[in-house]
Amino acid sequence: MAFARNPAVRVWMHLDERCAGFFALGMAKSAGRAVAVLCTSGTAAAELHPAVIEAHHSFTPLLVLTADRPPELREVGANQAIDQARLYGTAVRWFFDPGPPEELPGASRIWRRLAARAISEAEGPPAGPVHLNLPFREPLTVPPGEAAGAEPPQRAPTRVRRGHSLPTEDTVAGLTRALSAAQRPIVVAGELRAGDRLRPALDALLRRFDAPLLAEPSSQLRRRSGVGLVEAYDALLRDPRWADAHAPDLVLRLGAPPTSKPLNQLLARSGATTLVLEAEDGWRDPEQLAEELVRCDPEPLLRQLAARLPGSSRGWQQEWRDAGLIAAAAIHRRLAATPLHEGHVVRALARELPERAAVFVGSSMPIRDVDTFWPPAAPGQRFLGNRGASGIDGLVSTGLGVTAALEDAETAVLLLGDLSLYHDMNGLWAIRRHGLRAVLVALDNDGGGIFSFLPHAQHTDVFEELFGTPLGLRLEDVARLYGLDFLEVRDSSELQPALRQAFAADGSTLVAARFDRAESVRGHRACWAAVAEELLPVSSRGPRGGP
Amino acid sequence: MAFARNPAVRVWMHLDERCAGFFALGMAKSAGRAVAVLCTSGTAAAELHPAVIEAHHSFTPLLVLTADRPPELREVGANQAIDQARLYGTAVRWFFDPGPPEELPGASRIWRRLAARAISEAEGPPAGPVHLNLPFREPLTVPPGEAAGAEPPQRAPTRVRRGHSLPTEDTVAGLTRALSAAQRPIVVAGELRAGDRLRPALDALLRRFDAPLLAEPSSQLRRRSGVGLVEAYDALLRDPRWADAHAPDLVLRLGAPPTSKPLNQLLARSGATTLVLEAEDGWRDPEQLAEELVRCDPEPLLRQLAARLPGSSRGWQQEWRDAGLIAAAAIHRRLAATPLHEGHVVRALARELPERAAVFVGSSMPIRDVDTFWPPAAPGQRFLGNRGASGIDGLVSTGLGVTAALEDAETAVLLLGDLSLYHDMNGLWAIRRHGLRAVLVALDNDGGGIFSFLPHAQHTDVFEELFGTPLGLRLEDVARLYGLDFLEVRDSSELQPALRQAFAADGSTLVAARFDRAESVRGHRACWAAVAEELLPVSSRGPRGGP
Repeated sequence: MAFARNPAVRVWMHLDERCAGFFALGMAKSAGRAVAVLCTSGTAAAELHPAVIEAHHSFTPLLVLTADRPPELREVGANQAIDQARLYGTAVRWFFDPGPPEELPGASRIWRRLAARAISEAEGPPAGPVHLNLPFREPLTVPPGEAAGAEPPQRAPTRVRRGHSLPTEDTVAGLTRALSAAQRPIVVAGELRAGDRLRPALDALLRRFDAPLLAEPSSQLRRRSGVGLVEAYDALLRDPRWADAHAPDLVLRLGAPPTSKPLNQLLARSGATTLVLEAEDGWRDPEQLAEELVRCDPEPLLRQLAARLPGSSRGWQQEWRDAGLIAAAAIHRRLAATPLHEGHVVRALARELPERAAVFVGSSMPIRDVDTFWPPAAPGQRFLGNRGASGIDGLVSTGLGVTAALEDAETAVLLLGDLSLYHDMNGLWAIRRHGLRAVLVALDNDGGGIFSFLPHAQHTDVFEELFGTPLGLRLEDVARLYGLDFLEVRDSSELQPALRQAFAADGSTLVAARFDRAESVRGHRACWAAVAEELLPVSSRGPRGGP
Repeated sequence: MAFARNPAVRVWMHLDERCAGFFALGMAKSAGRAVAVLCTSGTAAAELHPAVIEAHHSFTPLLVLTADRPPELREVGANQAIDQARLYGTAVRWFFDPGPPEELPGASRIWRRLAARAISEAEGPPAGPVHLNLPFREPLTVPPGEAAGAEPPQRAPTRVRRGHSLPTEDTVAGLTRALSAAQRPIVVAGELRAGDRLRPALDALLRRFDAPLLAEPSSQLRRRSGVGLVEAYDALLRDPRWADAHAPDLVLRLGAPPTSKPLNQLLARSGATTLVLEAEDGWRDPEQLAEELVRCDPEPLLRQLAARLPGSSRGWQQEWRDAGLIAAAAIHRRLAATPLHEGHVVRALARELPERAAVFVGSSMPIRDVDTFWPPAAPGQRFLGNRGASGIDGLVSTGLGVTAALEDAETAVLLLGDLSLYHDMNGLWAIRRHGLRAVLVALDNDGGGIFSFLPHAQHTDVFEELFGTPLGLRLEDVARLYGLDFLEVRDSSELQPALRQAFAADGSTLVAARFDRAESVRGHRACWAAVAEELLPVSSRGPRGGP
């Protein structure tokens, strides 16, 4: 009630706390600052756990406020009283329980200091979730008109000023030497929510550093004008001849580890010197490759490296870029000749996407297909996902949280598989309750597509039951339930009109792109085969330079 | 895959792990033995947290098996790798992580011992959740036909034999003295899942002990033939004159604390000596009233008390029973004259319920309305709920887990509010996937009804937004999505035909009983007023005995 009556606070009411947690997470991911989520006591607090874990691993500032019963009602079988102390274990930056409110002198100062501290700890660095457990005694309400805690604040709240972690001279000099010595360097950019901030510095570096840029959409660095950008590198590297002929000797990695499996495999087997830049005090190196882990703001580091490098080119960056263009063209032609699958949907979405848009991409297949098929984007197009813990839960709500925190004139798109849509179907409630406008594109292959690409598929006796997991729900009925416009696409020719209609609509539209899982596997493999065929004349020339 | 291929294991596949957790919980509650729930790593494991908490507080044996990444892939940003050690904190009886499987000699013995230990710890006493975290290294599958871990078991698994906690002579003698000395004793029975086991002993006791029995349906002790049973005690005790005139001097409490607010208030203000029997090592005494807490099997204790008590009656038990009959008749008449609300639905359901049935009752309003309005039940009718943590999450799945573990010829009923139905709508997927047959009765007042009975309702500026929380979904559309038959009831005259149709149907039916929240408040209060009017001649006689 205090929040609802405070004009400085906007309340987004939810009914399913799991949705509320992910919605707040999406808002915080989009806005880049702390968002508070409030719930009652008991299992409601546990419902926030998945979102807290994603916030932890994705360095998202989240302020989790759980109401609780007072100490005398804990461990005595009282209603909705569970042990909420450190409920989220190691997944929070800070936990504090101030005890039930007391009418102490200066109470408002105590509470405001606690709030300032909690927000500061959540915003980091490293950013992440903070949990305040807030017990209350009855009466839980005071009669209307009687203001509770009416004591006016005596002092301004504490403003927190933090230092800025800049690279040391030793770091810059060491990395300059490493980069200068490299013969076959590459720059790899994984998820970086504020990646657009790095663009000028990275462009400057790549003008003077003869390295290709392999950037996922979620790095915000796969831009049409991006210097050194390689298109379709995932497809390129699926050709083992081409990949082996272009194994790097130095890898400069930014942000989260890459999504692309062939890229990860190449990085692991190349033996390249690996330098990982971590802005947020993470240690994200699943293949255990890093020789240097640099924890500071990467922007001034990139800028200083650019200023110090000599700026000569041996055509290495250009060779990657040329191959990327060949691969992209091969994919384009092969898609035109194959039945609908994820690749067509991603390409069509990229064509029709407004210049200012936030695309929330689901885990599992969508994040990989966007990495594989999305062409270089416009500067105003952002890409977000839940790559911290890579769950398929809470994706609708996270995407709608992003929608709720859109910047001016931005359009929101959610690209999700049908299982993810089902998993967080409750999240759709926020669309009608809060009048949100988003385009939801469901990759509807009636089940879990990713396992068809894995060795699990050989186990035909149990595969469909345990891994295919057909959903068996009609998404038309989901749209009806939640009052969404619905469009079905079964052929790639229907994608453009459907997406145009969805982007033009006043309300939210669910576009279901329907295809067969087996057809999708064939379609993907046909793309890789087409790329390999086109690259044959290139890679048969043999390794360039070479050890 | 090992589970799916083992003919001794039945796999119930789910897509939403939250649903899977609650479904397993419901099966375990119904069957009274451990059920295993298995999930992948990452947020999937956190999705089980709410069900684990309910299992902890309701003493439900649950074996939680979370797959994990091996240690070398933790804390390095690997996909779906989170910190799963002690993920459920203090809510589990036992946590163990055996590390990734190794081909050790006798490995099968090690694994089978671990399984035996885990099941034994889960089954207790006290029963509760056990968490095994199971890391695996790649490759996660072996090619079909190559059996993994083919070593045949060399020895039988460990069979665990436990002692039986019987009351000591000192306990029996002490309680006999206390009961013999009481002038105005009452017996109160809260939720007791295996309460039917206590029936003969309790009947024997109440034939010799002049005390009324106030038993919730979920105690399994509100039976048509139950000795000393008082009908409609919740309504009876809402008349403060009658309640004060019948304040007890001794309370013998079994199972969970009572749900009824007027009963709890009477117990708190009566000053009565309170004896709490806890079978499961709990300490459930939210009002901090217990003078004696007895932790042993209550069945032999009740039997021995019955054998030792003198068996005289002063008509105290009968006085309560007579008043209960008056209250029940008054409610019956008043319901006939008021528009549809929860009371009508509960009464109609009680009339139409098959003789062998499991009724899963939702938290919040339904559990209270069933306590208030459900008449004495047939011996084959069971009542279950999630009263451990009293969440409104996971109720569909828990109820369907109960359905999946029905005894022979039992019918399953789920009685839920519309918000609870929405919260766990994903749970409905199990109905079609697993061909479950249940009657779902939704108390559809488009929002949260309970707050209209609380002081929150005075805060009209924010009430509807924050507490009323209208759902705004059409349950017809929910039924269509999940392939349920749908019946709407708007008038009490429509209840009987709708319920008969639902019970006769081959498939599952959603019956939506629709009424207005304000009308429900008026309807409940009209019932209490009718009871007070009828009791006036009784209670105006003044306190019987008196202190």
